[in-house]
Parts: sequence; C-alpha cells; structure tokens
Amino acid sequence: MTATASSIAANPSPQAPDVEAAVRDVARRAQVASRALATASRGVKDAALHAIADALVSATDEIVAANALDGERERAGGMDAGLLDRLALTPARVEAIAQALRAVAALPDPVGDVVRGQTLPNGLRLQQLRVPMGVVGMIYEARPNVTVDAAGLALKSGNAVILRGGSAAIRSNEVIVRVLRDALEAQGLPADLVQTIDEFGRPGGVALMHARGLVDVLIPRGGASLIRTVVEESSVPVIETGVGNVHVYVDASADLDQAVAIVMNAKTQRVGVCNAAETLLVHADVVDAFLGRMLTELAGAGVVLHGDERTAQAAPSGVDVTPATDADWATEYLALELAVRVVDSLDEAIDHIRTYSSGHTEAILTNDLRAADRFVAEVDSAAVMVNASTRFTDGGELGLGAEIGISTQKLHARGPMGLAELTTTKWVVRGQGHVRP
Amino acid sequence: MTATASSIAANPSPQAPDVEAAVRDVARRAQVASRALATASRGVKDAALHAIADALVSATDEIVAANALDGERERAGGMDAGLLDRLALTPARVEAIAQALRAVAALPDPVGDVVRGQTLPNGLRLQQLRVPMGVVGMIYEARPNVTVDAAGLALKSGNAVILRGGSAAIRSNEVIVRVLRDALEAQGLPADLVQTIDEFGRPGGVALMHARGLVDVLIPRGGASLIRTVVEESSVPVIETGVGNVHVYVDASADLDQAVAIVMNAKTQRVGVCNAAETLLVHADVVDAFLGRMLTELAGAGVVLHGDERTAQAAPSGVDVTPATDADWATEYLALELAVRVVDSLDEAIDHIRTYSSGHTEAILTNDLRAADRFVAEVDSAAVMVNASTRFTDGGELGLGAEIGISTQKLHARGPMGLAELTTTKWVVRGQGHVRP
Repeated sequence: MTATASSIAANPSPQAPDVEAAVRDVARRAQVASRALATASRGVKDAALHAIADALVSATDEIVAANALDGERERAGGMDAGLLDRLALTPARVEAIAQALRAVAALPDPVGDVVRGQTLPNGLRLQQLRVPMGVVGMIYEARPNVTVDAAGLALKSGNAVILRGGSAAIRSNEVIVRVLRDALEAQGLPADLVQTIDEFGRPGGVALMHARGLVDVLIPRGGASLIRTVVEESSVPVIETGVGNVHVYVDASADLDQAVAIVMNAKTQRVGVCNAAETLLVHADVVDAFLGRMLTELAGAGVVLHGDERTAQAAPSGVDVTPATDADWATEYLALELAVRVVDSLDEAIDHIRTYSSGHTEAILTNDLRAADRFVAEVDSAAVMVNASTRFTDGGELGLGAEIGISTQKLHARGPMGLAELTTTKWVVRGQGHVRP
Repeated sequence: MTATASSIAANPSPQAPDVEAAVRDVARRAQVASRALATASRGVKDAALHAIADALVSATDEIVAANALDGERERAGGMDAGLLDRLALTPARVEAIAQALRAVAALPDPVGDVVRGQTLPNGLRLQQLRVPMGVVGMIYEARPNVTVDAAGLALKSGNAVILRGGSAAIRSNEVIVRVLRDALEAQGLPADLVQTIDEFGRPGGVALMHARGLVDVLIPRGGASLIRTVVEESSVPVIETGVGNVHVYVDASADLDQAVAIVMNAKTQRVGVCNAAETLLVHADVVDAFLGRMLTELAGAGVVLHGDERTAQAAPSGVDVTPATDADWATEYLALELAVRVVDSLDEAIDHIRTYSSGHTEAILTNDLRAADRFVAEVDSAAVMVNASTRFTDGGELGLGAEIGISTQKLHARGPMGLAELTTTKWVVRGQGHVRP
C-alpha cells in the first residue's frame, strides 16, 4: 500500500529499530513530496481533490467490501454498536466523504496570504506570508472518514500527511489510502503526499512521535487516553485536541425558556461529541422557576442525572438524581448523562469551571450584560458562548468551512482548526543591498 | 526571594519529588496571579512596567554588587571573557535594561485585538480575540538582562512568567526578581506574576518542563544543547528558538560590490548571534570576479575560512582556506569562522540549504527575479532575505518593537517573536437563544 509495504512483506515481524527506521523513511519521503505541493497553485490542488473524490466514488464497492471485513472482525471482537456504526461505510457514506472533499476544494487557499506587511523607514520591504507546514502527522481512532478528511485538508493547505489510524479500520484505510495515492499519481503529483504507517502498529505511532525535524506537527484525534499518550510521548510539536468537559451556566437573569432549549440542545442534539454539555450550573435564584422543569425535560429525553444536594431537592418526584461526586464534575460523559450543580453566584460558577473545565467550550445564559462580559473575560476556554448552544464550537458552524480537529491548547491554534491552522508563516525581506548599521 | 524560599530554607537539600511539588506550587501561584493581569487594562500594565524600570534603576548599586559576586565566582571557575562580558552588569547596563522596559510599555497592547470577526447568516456574532497565554516559562542561560526582558514582555502581554536562569547569574537574578516582585506589589499587582525557580537547580527546570496544564508555553533561550534538552524533555508545549546555521547565496547575477558588503555585514557586524552568516555559497560563474576578493576581505577581518576544493583554489596567496568537512556545513560557529562552497546552480544552492539549514534565515543576493522568486518559494526557513543582510532577522529590526526570541519551529510562531506571539486567542460567540438544528 505504501512504498514500504514490500519491505514489511519481507520482514513480517519488524523489530522496533526497524520500525523506527522505516517510519523515518516514510517521513523523509513525505518531506520530499511536500515540496512539490508547497509551490503548487490552488488550481492544481483543487483538481487533485476533485480527482480523489471521483476515485473514491468509483472505488465504492472495494471500499465497502474492505470495511465490511473490518466490521465483521470488530463485531466478533465485541465492539459496541455505537463504535461499529462510526466504523461502517456505506455507498451513501462514501459519497458524503467525496462530497466533503469537493467542499474543501471550494474553500479559499490560505497559502500565500499576507499576514503582515510593511515597508520599513530604511526601505526594507517586509511580508509575512502564509506557507504550508510541510509534513502533518495524524494519529486517530476507528473512523475511516477521518483518513479522507485529514488528507484533503492537508493537501489543500499544501502539506504532505502521514496517517496512523486505528487498527479497527485497518483494511478500510488500506484501500482508501491506495485510492488516494493512485489518484494523486494520475494527477502528476507524488503519491507520497499521502502515506499510512498502520502496518507498523503501535511502534509505528511511537516512531512518528519521535520524528522531530521530519514531521512538523502531530495532531491526535480520539479519546482522552490517546491524546494524553501523544502529548506526553511526542517530541514532535503536538496540537492537543478534543477533550471537552463542557459547562452551561444558567445565570439568575437568563431567559428561562431559551435556557431550557439551549441546555436540551447542548446535551441531547448529539451525544458523544466534544462540544456537547457535560455539566449544568444553575444560579440559586432560578432553582424554583427553572431547575425542576429542566430536570424533567432532561429525564424525559433519557438523560441520566448526577446532582448536588440542592439539585436533588429540586427534582420533581419521578425524576432520579444520583449524588454527584468530584469524579462527576471532572467527567466527559460523551453519553446521555449530565452533572448538575446549584451555585450561589457568577463567581462560584466561574470557580467551578476553572477547577473542572478542559478549556474547550463554556456557555453563559443571561440577560445581564455585566455578567456576560465577566464570563467572557474570565473563563479561559477556547470558545465562550453567550446565549447560544455549546454545539456551535465546530469549524463548519463557525465559518471555517471544515475542521481537522478542535484544539484545547493555547499554542498555535485554539478552538476549531481549519485550513489556516495547517499552515505556518515565512518572513520575506527584500532589500537593495541593505546591511545592518 | 519567591514565596517558596522559606520551604527551601527549611529543607536545604530537597529531593526530586519535593522539587516537583514545589515547582508545581510555583506554577499554580503563577496561574492564579495571571488572572489579575489577564483582564487588566493597558494603562495598568504600562504603569507597572514603568514602576519596575524605576525600581531597577533605584536598586542599581545592589544589583551591580550581586552581579559582581556572580562575576568573581565565574571568573575563578574559568568562564571565558566573552561570557563574562555578557554576564556583567554596570550602572549603564542597568539603565539600558530599564529603558528597554519603558520601550515595551510604549508598544501597542496585543490583548483584545480582534483577529477574526463576522456575523453568520444565522445571526450568531463571532469574534476571535487575542488573549494572554496565562503562564509563560523561560529557561535561559547566563545573561541577566533576559530576566528583565522576558518579565517585561510577559507582563505587557498579560502573562505571568516563571524564570529559570543560568546558575552563573543566580545572585544577579535573585536581586532582580526581588526588585521586580516588590515593584509589582507596590503597584497593587500580585508579586507572583514574576517568579524564579533558580533555587531548585536543574531538577527545578525538569519539573517546569513537566508542568503541563499549569504552564502554557516554555521558551528556551540559549545554546543548541539547552534547547535540544528542553524540546526532548518537555511535555509543556515548547517554542524552539535560536539555532541559526545561516546561509548567504551569491547568485551569478548578484551585484558583487553589494555582495561583498552584505557578506561582511552578515558575518562580522556581530558574531555570536543566531542571525550571523555561517556558510557562504557562491555561484561558479562569479568565482573569478568575486570569490578571491571576498575571501581576502573576510581573512582581513580575521575570519577563519573553511572551504571546498574550488574555494581553496580561488583563494589568493596569503589567504588560508582549510578543507571544509560535512561537520563544517552543519556547524553554527558563532565566531569569526565561515564555511564557503562553490555551487554550479541555484538548485545546488537550494539543495545544500535544505540539507544543512536549521531553518532560521537564508539570503540570496541576485538581480535575477526568477532566481529570487524560486529561492523565496523553495527555501523553507523562518526568514528569507533578498539582497539584504541576514542580520535583519530580529524583532526590533522587523518592526515588532521587541522580541522574546526567534522561533525556528513552525508551530505557533516562526521567526522573531514579539508581544503577539505571547498571546493566544479565544472565540467569543454571541447569540439570542441559538441552538443547533
């Protein structure tokens, strides 16, 4: 599947040093390939994305067949229904994946944007230009659509990509990557712009994390433990993504009908996503007018409730609230579960968020301008919502067109990452024989 | 000196776990202190910088006395004259340090800048605002002026700073940090905005590198080995700075008088700095008209020359050229030494640079527009100069006002880092009850 497949075939159980050398070799080829794309025009890149989209649709039968093998193996291995659904590819899903690539082609190209520019008093002409990163590494879990999404965004922003997907999708990804590479080659671009290291298993992922100087950035996408491992192990710069212990705070002055609608949306519109609410904080002044009604709605939608003592007291009969522990405040349920706490003030809400938030998204529901301003200023998260659902923290929803992940760190990118976040900058300084006095 | 000094006094030889707990405690206090500054107005921050500048000048005698003790100890320990000079503080140098702080106060405040903003079709109002990082860690070597520079830039951009300076400047830094903390407190700001962990020695530095979640970014400044250690050891996001294996390429069409002046400036105007030239590449077509003359000028300025065979052949009698090895091409001399190579084409020059550059700064001297455009597009460095000295890669020279270092990585910041590079962003989304359909 990649150019290293033959060396692996000859060496069916590679030892760690072999894997490290092989992965560094993959990265070196990615670096060379990336140069062809770094100076390619938008037209060339968009044509390649359309060609890939067409090739994926043409290969639908093969992709779906390989995916069915992954699905059978994982079902036999005990994978739960939700994960099996995420893993599954149907002809309609392949078409949707291709359509997403065409949408990326339609986005503006960030490469070449002038970020800063001026002529200095001494006549030096400066430009700080957006340029591709070079080589982007992705480490992710079972969803095979991420393989195509990541490749598409990396290519559009002028980068080569090295993919390390979950073993659950290994056969799907093998076929998809081969289709992508063949389509690139048919467009006159290097196949090595897209490579997978799945055949090297875990040691391959570790080798990728240590390929500093060859890989410019590593983006882990998946569960908290995957992300923690990459962050701690990697010497390649990492962008930490995704973990969202998301809070909604209903202030004393909130519009309570809106509040019910927003909390329901934030918790139940889609579960298992990082921008879904995990903790509800309610100002003590609106417990009577709001909390009982809210808990009834949530329970009616099947949400399991964990609450502090005042929440339990406010629960109407028939609505179960189990006592919340410290672990509940810290948990990203990613399920129909919610922790609920009554607070006496905005300060108490902000303190709770400071203690437990993962820095992803928090919302305040209020009509008090001063409370909104303080919440926006003092809550230190990638996204802060005022009177809107936390579900809007999403590259598509926020106008970025597409996203490769949601950063919860402060370096380089924070919040949804689109094409611009897959680029870096270069200073270009033009003189006429200028020397420094 | 810091609030942990007493715990250390009670425990004169702290074990590693104690150091780690103590440093995490320092970081937690920095995090709390940073909140006071995150929402402070520019006026408050600028007043603090002026107060610190005044306090440093008032404490000149004490600072110079402590510095003299550092200097005596290091001289006795065999520190060379160049490093002793960098370590030394005189009343004039203290005044210059204070003046640099006042210059930082005069710079625009990046906090609150709107990086992106729009109203979406659904009525959601979006802003991506510049906000402080939070806690910035600095690990650096002997120069005590970095202590003040780093603190000044961190405070101006709304951050708390944790300093780990070189042991050579420990007494100087101890006094300086105390002066800074007292001045902050007198301004009604938390002293813990500026803390040092010098008393914990190397284990303290290691603990700082592992304080992920408490420290938002770590910036090493110093020699290549210091930087490599931090990059490899740290789980806190790092910005790699400084190593500059800088190339100047003299193209066939260069203005040769300009070329002589630029190469002399790039190599000799100041040595021991990261933007000084380390390798000269000369197109074969101008060897006769240029190289002999250039080598004579360089040798006349005391530059030790390492060259390939054609360079040696071009050297006039009396000009020594020792044979360059692969190690020479890879070396950042930081001294009056230069590697020189004749190349047959622009492609060969670009290939050489790709192989050996550290990605800091490279220059092309040419009058050929196509050559200039290709060099700018294909050389993958933080700064690319056309007909200008490499010495211009500097925050002050490029209009940033001040710099905390020069990044040679691609993530977050590339090239000179000013105040904006010490900030991150926050998405603020304002709705009127918006939920996601």
